[in-house]
Amino acid sequence: MTVSEIPAPNTGLADYLQRIDRVLNAALPAADTDPARLHEAMRYACRGGKRLRALLTYAAGAVLGAEPAQLDAPACALELIHAYSLVHDDLPAMDDDDLRRGQPTVHKAYDEATAILVGDALLTLAFRVLAEPQAATSAAAQLRMLQLLADAAGSIGMVGGQAIDIESEQQKIPLARLESLHARKTGALIRCGLQLAAAAAGATPQQEQALSEFGRLLGLAYQIQDDVLDESATTEVLGKTQGKDRAQEKSTYPSLLGFDAAKALAAQTFAQARAALALFGEHAQPLLRLAGTIEYRDH
Amino acid sequence: MTVSEIPAPNTGLADYLQRIDRVLNAALPAADTDPARLHEAMRYACRGGKRLRALLTYAAGAVLGAEPAQLDAPACALELIHAYSLVHDDLPAMDDDDLRRGQPTVHKAYDEATAILVGDALLTLAFRVLAEPQAATSAAAQLRMLQLLADAAGSIGMVGGQAIDIESEQQKIPLARLESLHARKTGALIRCGLQLAAAAAGATPQQEQALSEFGRLLGLAYQIQDDVLDESATTEVLGKTQGKDRAQEKSTYPSLLGFDAAKALAAQTFAQARAALALFGEHAQPLLRLAGTIEYRDH
Repeated sequence: MTVSEIPAPNTGLADYLQRIDRVLNAALPAADTDPARLHEAMRYACRGGKRLRALLTYAAGAVLGAEPAQLDAPACALELIHAYSLVHDDLPAMDDDDLRRGQPTVHKAYDEATAILVGDALLTLAFRVLAEPQAATSAAAQLRMLQLLADAAGSIGMVGGQAIDIESEQQKIPLARLESLHARKTGALIRCGLQLAAAAAGATPQQEQALSEFGRLLGLAYQIQDDVLDESATTEVLGKTQGKDRAQEKSTYPSLLGFDAAKALAAQTFAQARAALALFGEHAQPLLRLAGTIEYRDH
Repeated sequence: MTVSEIPAPNTGLADYLQRIDRVLNAALPAADTDPARLHEAMRYACRGGKRLRALLTYAAGAVLGAEPAQLDAPACALELIHAYSLVHDDLPAMDDDDLRRGQPTVHKAYDEATAILVGDALLTLAFRVLAEPQAATSAAAQLRMLQLLADAAGSIGMVGGQAIDIESEQQKIPLARLESLHARKTGALIRCGLQLAAAAAGATPQQEQALSEFGRLLGLAYQIQDDVLDESATTEVLGKTQGKDRAQEKSTYPSLLGFDAAKALAAQTFAQARAALALFGEHAQPLLRLAGTIEYRDH
């Protein structure tokens, strides 16, 4: 499928995109409040992006029959965590990237110290947003969501995955290690979006388990595809430097399996993710459509 | 008062010190769990230190008649936030310090990328610890504590103070701006320890207000004294590079007021902090003793 054939996001997704932008805008400190430069840079760090984690959270809520308002806090918290992780990952001591979403990274647009503080502030704000009392969610459910988010984001989740990624640079690592790296680095937060939606919507244990498994497989498929796209797409389409993984001699699915086998594995894993939603029958549509949009993306 | 005249910590404080070390040890991931290097570095970042924020929390709990176990989670969360902030503040792009508590800073003992991730992981763990269900604290009170901590640590609190500090380097700033800088950078977290103790112990609004005001004044006194000590103590006693503020042409209380006036202001502010506890009568002793230990420290 070429770029021109990618299906336009359906109305539901477009609504969610507008909604998460509104929610983020309300959660972020105003750019003219003290310290203004930090607050402006926090907003800069949260501009654009695919909002995949928020979309997944809203779509999972729709599958469970929840109101979008019930998902605002977890969707916003996830996007704040994701935004902070990109700001810190792009730092010179980490991946050293100048370009993100087609624009200068935060440490390029501002400076390194500000980028470190922006990440710290966004991470802190994520927990602030999720700790705010919600009319439709019990305090006990909110505490559980805060624990899930902290586990997904911390040293046994996303931050741990990034640490393993840095250790693994310039060496071939076994496929199982690569999978465990990505399960933490990107998978944990994607899966967390599904788990938070289940917690916010009061899902049954079976429903929560199915959504969590969908999240695990989707996160894996997403990462395999990310590696494939890094090999095949142009820098212009990606909005970040293309072929960077290969240049850094990072282990990737294409480098370990070959390009075609990696592409086939991505398709197979997307199919497994869809199958995990069988429990929901027709109600699974919002998540299935979103999975399709992700599978047929070009960046 | 010279170093040899400093009163030994009373038994209560020594007990609290042992207790917070045990609690931190239990909260931090084991150093042999994956990713082992990150987890080891997280523990390295939390070693030693005065544990001032934890001691304040336990002592405030004692003033309110609470059991120490009720204060374990907030005391631990505060020390994790404090430890993360030191790791990030010491980074080359920030204060660029090689020495902390007399030993190499995390980015010197490990590397810069690890130091960034250690800070992120400790910050995340702080919220994880405070979100863990507590037998003696209601879920609603815990959510309130999480909000207080996020506000004290984030862009309107500690991180915002650090941003203002960086903006203010190599320039004279007015005394009011210096005070607002420190109220955020160090004051917010110290005050938060008192507020969390009040929330955990179910204090009355009057008690909470008095503790919060004590925290505000103590944090201010502590910072003025810190500036004074940076001018007068030796690098060996401080455990960090002495005279660094002056070398960086930072505005400090001594540089704005003169050394003797700054010293007098510190003493006066400590006295005001003590006066804020009048409400508690004799029960204020644990906090009064701790304030004394802080006032007569040499580093």
